[in-house]
Amino acid sequence: MTSNNKTRIGFIGTGIMGGPMARHLADAGFAVTAWNRSPDKADALAPFGVGAASEAKEARHAEIVISMLSSGPVCDEVLFGPNAATDAMSPGSTLVVMSSIPVETARKQSVLAGQKGIRYVDAPVSGGEKGAREGTLAIMAGGEASTINALEPVLAALGRVTHVGPAGAGSLAKLANQLIVASNICTVAEALLLAERGGADPARVREALLGGFADSTVLRLHGRRMIESDFVPGGPAKYQIKDTGTALALAASLGLTLPIATEVDRIFRGLVDNFGGDLDHSAAIIELRRINVL
Amino acid sequence: MTSNNKTRIGFIGTGIMGGPMARHLADAGFAVTAWNRSPDKADALAPFGVGAASEAKEARHAEIVISMLSSGPVCDEVLFGPNAATDAMSPGSTLVVMSSIPVETARKQSVLAGQKGIRYVDAPVSGGEKGAREGTLAIMAGGEASTINALEPVLAALGRVTHVGPAGAGSLAKLANQLIVASNICTVAEALLLAERGGADPARVREALLGGFADSTVLRLHGRRMIESDFVPGGPAKYQIKDTGTALALAASLGLTLPIATEVDRIFRGLVDNFGGDLDHSAAIIELRRINVL
Repeated sequence: MTSNNKTRIGFIGTGIMGGPMARHLADAGFAVTAWNRSPDKADALAPFGVGAASEAKEARHAEIVISMLSSGPVCDEVLFGPNAATDAMSPGSTLVVMSSIPVETARKQSVLAGQKGIRYVDAPVSGGEKGAREGTLAIMAGGEASTINALEPVLAALGRVTHVGPAGAGSLAKLANQLIVASNICTVAEALLLAERGGADPARVREALLGGFADSTVLRLHGRRMIESDFVPGGPAKYQIKDTGTALALAASLGLTLPIATEVDRIFRGLVDNFGGDLDHSAAIIELRRINVL
Repeated sequence: MTSNNKTRIGFIGTGIMGGPMARHLADAGFAVTAWNRSPDKADALAPFGVGAASEAKEARHAEIVISMLSSGPVCDEVLFGPNAATDAMSPGSTLVVMSSIPVETARKQSVLAGQKGIRYVDAPVSGGEKGAREGTLAIMAGGEASTINALEPVLAALGRVTHVGPAGAGSLAKLANQLIVASNICTVAEALLLAERGGADPARVREALLGGFADSTVLRLHGRRMIESDFVPGGPAKYQIKDTGTALALAASLGLTLPIATEVDRIFRGLVDNFGGDLDHSAAIIELRRINVL
């Protein structure tokens, strides 16, 4: 099926995000082979020109292996554990980890890959399912400039790529992204709560602020959810506290005090403790209402 | 100069914001007369079809009086003090206060205006000088729906108007706006500081985040200032603490605890204490660097 002059890409983890990403790569003319723990997910991509592999060792045929496994530990296990993809990969090939993993994990993976002669890039994304479907992800890439430049035609099929620093920097940028999203959610929640309690119509206030200096993606998306009390996730609160916890742990390891992030983490932990972890993170507003019972 | 069938508007306070706003109203075909404490500012608008009045009592000719005086106390004095504009205004006319004033002041002004038979709307704006020049202000209007509907053709010449609630709600929405801007600034500062200390390139991180869920006007504008260390105001830190202080005082009067706003206020007070009040509020990042000296 694959012609010899097409770049061969192995794609590991074709779930909600990875599925459409693998399709975009096939659409862009790359020879994509998908591997998934649930083989039917990979098989389902066959009509879109994506081949299916049954084992990670099929990665030996790939010039580029992309991982979009959803969990950090699974990603680490599949790529570097027993019978790992990197055992099969050829020296000189490139491993692109697009899963969101801790900065330290990315740095460790980079070293391990290097020992096997494999180039390594951590390139997590922002933009969610919509960005994956539409090929408009924000891709934050950490690694060698030459490796990332060579990947540019591949990653361009998935979204907009920015080289943010050495290996680990992609994951760090993603963490910065998550921290901003979390803090902006709590901020919008406080502002809407103030408006509500002060006697204004919070839905109208949100609307009025669009296009001004207070505008943000969070005001648009999560602000609307707060007003409609639509807390079906989206981004469940239990994952949110993982992100804020990771950010604060990294900050602590660097000797950094982040006063806003500290309060944001506290609000989300309160949300999980008092309302469970399965509500969307925009439910921060109900935790703020709880601590501000009239 | 003014034809009888044009709506007559008195415009008080033709400074950096008010000047271009008065011009837009004249351009839109209204009969605008400007009054300013410095008469030359009003006279300078003559070439653009804006008449000049020497005293606030000229407001008697106006169906609508708009105030864009920069300070709350001056606004209160000119509109409701001795020889005030509202003494001259006709019953049934409308007073539109577009200055940013405390919520309580707006409510009090609304009552005083009502006692004189004058309709009252508080309609502060977001969007700054650029929005005033381009006629793209976000206008947050508080008052009676019928009054605000009647003002729609007038305010449409200045930007996009949203009715956010009763008198005072416009000022409350503006406060929510300021609170979000202030919090987003501290948030972006924390995220960029984490990126910087963690070994990524903060300029590239900011760039990577544009278009994703972390995107905001503050990330774009103030984030760029932080990276370029460009702290020429803009929005001076000394005004910023006025806004956060006002928001916290209002919250306290409502029995509301706002954990993020509390930390944000603390950061900006630290900025003013340690670096003076004249830096742009995006200088929050240097205060965060100060409390996180290596």
